[in-house]
Amino acid sequence: MPIITLTSDMGTSGYYVGSVKAAILSKIPSATIVDITHHIRPFHISSAAFVIRNAYNQFPQGTVHMVSVDALNNRSPRFLLLQADGHYFIGADNGLFSLALIKQPDKVFEIAFAPNSPVATFPARDVFAPVACHLLQGGQPDAVGKQVTDYLRPTAWQPTYDANSITAVILYIDEYGNCICNLDSTLFAQIAKGRAFVIDVKGYAIDSISRAYSDHPQGEIVALFSSSGMLELAMNHGNMAELIGLKEGDMVKINFA
Amino acid sequence: MPIITLTSDMGTSGYYVGSVKAAILSKIPSATIVDITHHIRPFHISSAAFVIRNAYNQFPQGTVHMVSVDALNNRSPRFLLLQADGHYFIGADNGLFSLALIKQPDKVFEIAFAPNSPVATFPARDVFAPVACHLLQGGQPDAVGKQVTDYLRPTAWQPTYDANSITAVILYIDEYGNCICNLDSTLFAQIAKGRAFVIDVKGYAIDSISRAYSDHPQGEIVALFSSSGMLELAMNHGNMAELIGLKEGDMVKINFA
Amino acid sequence: MPIITLTSDMGTSGYYVGSVKAAILSKIPSATIVDITHHIRPFHISSAAFVIRNAYNQFPQGTVHMVSVDALNNRSPRFLLLQADGHYFIGADNGLFSLALIKQPDKVFEIAFAPNSPVATFPARDVFAPVACHLLQGGQPDAVGKQVTDYLRPTAWQPTYDANSITAVILYIDEYGNCICNLDSTLFAQIAKGRAFVIDVKGYAIDSISRAYSDHPQGEIVALFSSSGMLELAMNHGNMAELIGLKEGDMVKINFA
Repeated sequence: MPIITLTSDMGTSGYYVGSVKAAILSKIPSATIVDITHHIRPFHISSAAFVIRNAYNQFPQGTVHMVSVDALNNRSPRFLLLQADGHYFIGADNGLFSLALIKQPDKVFEIAFAPNSPVATFPARDVFAPVACHLLQGGQPDAVGKQVTDYLRPTAWQPTYDANSITAVILYIDEYGNCICNLDSTLFAQIAKGRAFVIDVKGYAIDSISRAYSDHPQGEIVALFSSSGMLELAMNHGNMAELIGLKEGDMVKINFA
Repeated sequence: MPIITLTSDMGTSGYYVGSVKAAILSKIPSATIVDITHHIRPFHISSAAFVIRNAYNQFPQGTVHMVSVDALNNRSPRFLLLQADGHYFIGADNGLFSLALIKQPDKVFEIAFAPNSPVATFPARDVFAPVACHLLQGGQPDAVGKQVTDYLRPTAWQPTYDANSITAVILYIDEYGNCICNLDSTLFAQIAKGRAFVIDVKGYAIDSISRAYSDHPQGEIVALFSSSGMLELAMNHGNMAELIGLKEGDMVKINFA
Repeated sequence: MPIITLTSDMGTSGYYVGSVKAAILSKIPSATIVDITHHIRPFHISSAAFVIRNAYNQFPQGTVHMVSVDALNNRSPRFLLLQADGHYFIGADNGLFSLALIKQPDKVFEIAFAPNSPVATFPARDVFAPVACHLLQGGQPDAVGKQVTDYLRPTAWQPTYDANSITAVILYIDEYGNCICNLDSTLFAQIAKGRAFVIDVKGYAIDSISRAYSDHPQGEIVALFSSSGMLELAMNHGNMAELIGLKEGDMVKINFA
């Protein structure tokens, strides 16, 4: 039976996550539920998208990913089921999945539910969990609602560049203070053309790409293309974001010689 | 096989939760264990009761709920197994379950254990887990100890009211800063009799009950009867408790016209 | 099938833990994965060792313990599989297991992997998970690499003592603020020889060993040999570490009459 993953901003100090799992296990006692995280910053769609983007395709094909972040974003919340890349995604129509998915979704369905039903405060338990169970039990995706094409598709922040420079931003700061930027190695190589370069972040300069954090002595700043495939700025055995005072959204400039 | 849920104030940074799960899985390798939360404020019985009250009956009948909060509350700790509402509850005789349960328990058993056994510092692992496994393996509840009636039954904080006003308190503040009060919609309707009203919280006035957070613009204060069935004061896309400086136990006054 | 436990400093706010579980469940959909903790202080080997030491042997024989703390500690990281005490341990050659294991390991294998493989930033997912799956599927430990004896074996901090005193240090502070010291009851009894004593911690004096936190009134300082078997200094219903300002590594002096 496929896996269900949970990603949310619910935290783990209340009854919310337990209630969602109860809703799933009441229908499917043998379900395999994997928490990706419940510590997305409240309402922070782009952080959630980054986490989903890096986690989802590690799971087997057919996995159902429930994402409850900013799910009640407007007066008439609209909930979606997406089929994409061999996976299912359930969440609100708030643009999150367009930022998270590597490929365009194959099909998008609007989840039908009675507009006056008491779902208005807890869609993860009352809407997403039943849809996830439907899919796990072999139900067809088109049974949950009509196919739509008019869902929200925000444009992800893309790095800007010219012949001799790239300007990226910090997308995400992890538990270690490592700063992951919206720049992959393909674009970097395309502009770099093998030239020397300086990565400038808040006045600190990095002039090489490392293979591992430990290529430099402890406490030194390192740039590498990490397990997420994106440019990561880190400090070997230190918390780079804290020490230099970086936050998500900060700019990183790369100049090529 | 029934589910075991875990609720505690152990946190998740040490070896405690892992040890409890090991104690269960050593006896029943296929047990389904669901963490409700391990982040109850240490020794905070009323928060734990609120979480249990809102989570337990989402689980299937027969679920075993282990609750380890303030379990060593006195020199001769006493541990209970309760049968209530089709569920089992295991924890200390500290009044928590009387606050948590919607109905009176059907039966309460005092868990027998050797008074000089080394349970004095870790009852969740050494007492509660074995009792939970006993139940999961089809054991009878009365095999764990003698039935008792003299367990602690504190009175839950109830709202006070007269013909034209209700005074409630904030029972619980969740991860989003939403403030849940000890007032359900039945009592509210009974006093309101359809009249206009003002909810006064720290000088802020709310004069309507919303159906959803998003009934008001972002940043506005909203009152609604939430997924828990209780009055909830929230800020659409904001952290109400932080911004207004509310804490659990604060008073909320409702005046009817 | 044996259990896999996970211990790391990855935190639970990103995609790292989800990715590790995905790597395991992709190969073994029915795997039982138990999080011990992902909140080890980043790079803090001795805290991780304390947690593992107290958790591992509660699990059934044959359990596979994956530990990812400071796994990329040097330029040429080296990863080990240990067989010890009927359990398997997978992690980096950074000395952690020598501090964690009660007995010497029976056998230690160096995990073979291609030195230029992209494991350099995420060994838990890319190296440890596949080795764990190999073992769960009945694979032999010696198939993962050659047996070695030259792994790191740091000496654990031992208490110092003479005929009339013991000097210990605080190894670990738990969620409740309880302070666990590197002193077990055997050494204590050996020096004490039944004499009166004073435990001095930051000027506070404790002159008895209790059986339970609640042997003293709330707010009083208590010393006991806890569920970990080590000397623990605690405050009944209070956070001792916070109130007295203690931290891991602080000294505790015991003088015998």
